[in-house]
Amino acid sequence: MRQINIGLLGCGTVGTGVAKLLIENKDLLTARVGADLNLKWVADIDIETDRGIQFPAGVLTTDAQKVLNDPAIDMIIEMIGGEGIAKEFILQAIDNGKHVVTANKALLAAQGNELFAAAAAKGVDLAFEASVGGCMPTIKSMRESLVGNHIKSMSGILNGTCNYILSKIEDEGISFKEALAEAQRQGYAEADPTLDVGGFDTAHKIAILAALAYGMEINLKDVYIEGISRITPLDIEFAGQFGYRIKLLAISKILASRVEARVHPTMIPFRNLLTSISGTVNALSISGDAVGDILLYGRGAGMMPTASAVVSDIVDIARNILSGTARRIPPLSYQRDSISKIPVLSIDDLVTHYYFRFAALDRPGVLSNISGIFGKYGISIRSVHQKGRKTNGSVPLVMLTHQAREADVKRALAEIRDLNVVSDEPVLIRIEDDELD
Amino acid sequence: MRQINIGLLGCGTVGTGVAKLLIENKDLLTARVGADLNLKWVADIDIETDRGIQFPAGVLTTDAQKVLNDPAIDMIIEMIGGEGIAKEFILQAIDNGKHVVTANKALLAAQGNELFAAAAAKGVDLAFEASVGGCMPTIKSMRESLVGNHIKSMSGILNGTCNYILSKIEDEGISFKEALAEAQRQGYAEADPTLDVGGFDTAHKIAILAALAYGMEINLKDVYIEGISRITPLDIEFAGQFGYRIKLLAISKILASRVEARVHPTMIPFRNLLTSISGTVNALSISGDAVGDILLYGRGAGMMPTASAVVSDIVDIARNILSGTARRIPPLSYQRDSISKIPVLSIDDLVTHYYFRFAALDRPGVLSNISGIFGKYGISIRSVHQKGRKTNGSVPLVMLTHQAREADVKRALAEIRDLNVVSDEPVLIRIEDDELD
Repeated sequence: MRQINIGLLGCGTVGTGVAKLLIENKDLLTARVGADLNLKWVADIDIETDRGIQFPAGVLTTDAQKVLNDPAIDMIIEMIGGEGIAKEFILQAIDNGKHVVTANKALLAAQGNELFAAAAAKGVDLAFEASVGGCMPTIKSMRESLVGNHIKSMSGILNGTCNYILSKIEDEGISFKEALAEAQRQGYAEADPTLDVGGFDTAHKIAILAALAYGMEINLKDVYIEGISRITPLDIEFAGQFGYRIKLLAISKILASRVEARVHPTMIPFRNLLTSISGTVNALSISGDAVGDILLYGRGAGMMPTASAVVSDIVDIARNILSGTARRIPPLSYQRDSISKIPVLSIDDLVTHYYFRFAALDRPGVLSNISGIFGKYGISIRSVHQKGRKTNGSVPLVMLTHQAREADVKRALAEIRDLNVVSDEPVLIRIEDDELD
Repeated sequence: MRQINIGLLGCGTVGTGVAKLLIENKDLLTARVGADLNLKWVADIDIETDRGIQFPAGVLTTDAQKVLNDPAIDMIIEMIGGEGIAKEFILQAIDNGKHVVTANKALLAAQGNELFAAAAAKGVDLAFEASVGGCMPTIKSMRESLVGNHIKSMSGILNGTCNYILSKIEDEGISFKEALAEAQRQGYAEADPTLDVGGFDTAHKIAILAALAYGMEINLKDVYIEGISRITPLDIEFAGQFGYRIKLLAISKILASRVEARVHPTMIPFRNLLTSISGTVNALSISGDAVGDILLYGRGAGMMPTASAVVSDIVDIARNILSGTARRIPPLSYQRDSISKIPVLSIDDLVTHYYFRFAALDRPGVLSNISGIFGKYGISIRSVHQKGRKTNGSVPLVMLTHQAREADVKRALAEIRDLNVVSDEPVLIRIEDDELD
């Protein structure tokens, strides 16, 4: 039986999961692939800690170079993370003619174009299914199942930490800070949660997906990013009254000559299946010209779900090796000469529906002042709601708009702030509701 | 640029969709595949009807043999349906060394083992993504994305007609007959709806999925099949009171030495995402040892969604041809020598939870009579509910059980029928609720 030799770099949580699957489900993999997927090396700085796996003798090493330079190794699994040594190792593996599997979304989103170019030049595969949506088949679906479709848009819940926190705020009426603390206690949020709650992790993922969907270079720097730290139980409650739920969404759409790519808390109607996704799971809805909408749902993180996606990449590459081919599918879905730079729409040019909440001083004329300013900037109000309890001399004044341009909204809000009829910063939450005009 | 020549047999709804995608999205496909997917022949008895597509000159033919015997043709797309001529054409195509794409679930479920053996013997691909779940990536996910997982179970809504009818009964409180008539008016049900509402179409799909999941031969004849024609608004209402919704589910699980494969109306708790799937869409939940649960959701039928899945198969095969390989992935997910005959559990041996509704005569002792019989057969009652209006001298008596064996349940129900304390046939609906003991 043909043997495929695998070198794993980094044996943290996901790396351990990958080793576990390759070792414990070996018979299953052999029955399916018809070859021996041999975990030849596992390199990590720490090879003492018990990871709960029975590694074959001689597999563990602290010397990544030994793995990268072993001519018997067919593919390198980069499970180190970050943009430092991980990138160096990937480039070195490619340079040594080895195929690479990674789950490193931060690296791919920021520097993927360089890595994919290097892999193309060397004719090796660079696979990354686990970088977006954990075990959900996001990359494979986009690149293979929907290959006959023009992708029109995508929206997804791609960060389990944020979704857990928003679910907590909603279910228990607690503040963002309290919900974050709970997420940290449960191990769902890091000690420094910025990457997750700031929306950056979600942005890495939508930057990768947008490239795959539309045939564009990866462009993280132009993705609009807004996190969830300002979401309050009050806004979630109001959202519910309007038939919406607030989710941190990654949204991307193709326009005439531009692409939308943005991450922000979003109100979506209850009929949208994404509102049913609570807790730490992920879901991605993809709209194509032939399929209409499909939705994928699954665990977006965690040892074994992520390892499952990594192993699917390992098998894909193994099958390429067994059939004597590489780069059977272009990594970014399009042939390299069909990939272009499609500009990302500036958030200022976004046209969408808005929810605003003002802490309005309880005095006459406030509503007419505010709506006058909106009128001045051509922002048409769909409804106004003045309800709820008075706090510190102000009452919540909620307004929903028809379609408006974000630059106009910003100008109007700045002017409203200067009016001195509202206390606190106005709250702005974008609405995605295709049944609105 | 390399050209891949495609021959389409059957230009009905889905066949037309495939032709449309290959012609209208040609540039997109070229940009992604890097080859010219050339629709060389479209064969149908009727080549006169306007299908709303601009076919290139000379593509249409009434002569299937011309297509099957054209040495330039790389792959045959069988879009005829049924188990007659479709099977002959597929075998002939295989015999001529051509790869085959089909969406013909009825044929594959009934005679797939023979077809897959023929394809293996000739070393050609036989692809069938569109046979299960329309545009949802069911086959690809099972075979590739979850390749590292032992599949533990699956449950799915795999027939849009049934799901539409059940949604209608629930939303409008109408009878099965009325809902079916409405589905027929809307074009969601055939004039003879037996294949759909009888559960047979769903059974074809779960027979295929079970083979892929567990490495077993396709075994349609042992799938337990029960349709939706006996579902009433009253049972749906009671289900709701217990926190359940009724769906026609395809269910399959791997047990120690057997496989469950069954299709029947099922009560599932609202926390199960499948309860959110209403109307004509499909959804499949797959449970694997590494991923936990993933869920796929999308349109399970219709011209373009199904065509999208067919085109994904066409592209997969084209990529195999371009990279000089065939049968890169075994069609039934496992290598042929790893496929065995795993017996399907007889429905009599099923152990699950049950909902019963009796039209109980309104006289003393009825409950004790009935529960006495259940006790005799070792069936433990979880709760009893006697409520609702009296009709024709009887009141609905609802009972929910703890886990019970179906053979015992059948014997008990037969004995209860003979008691003459119930009018009408007792209603039995199985419950899938993993939080029950």
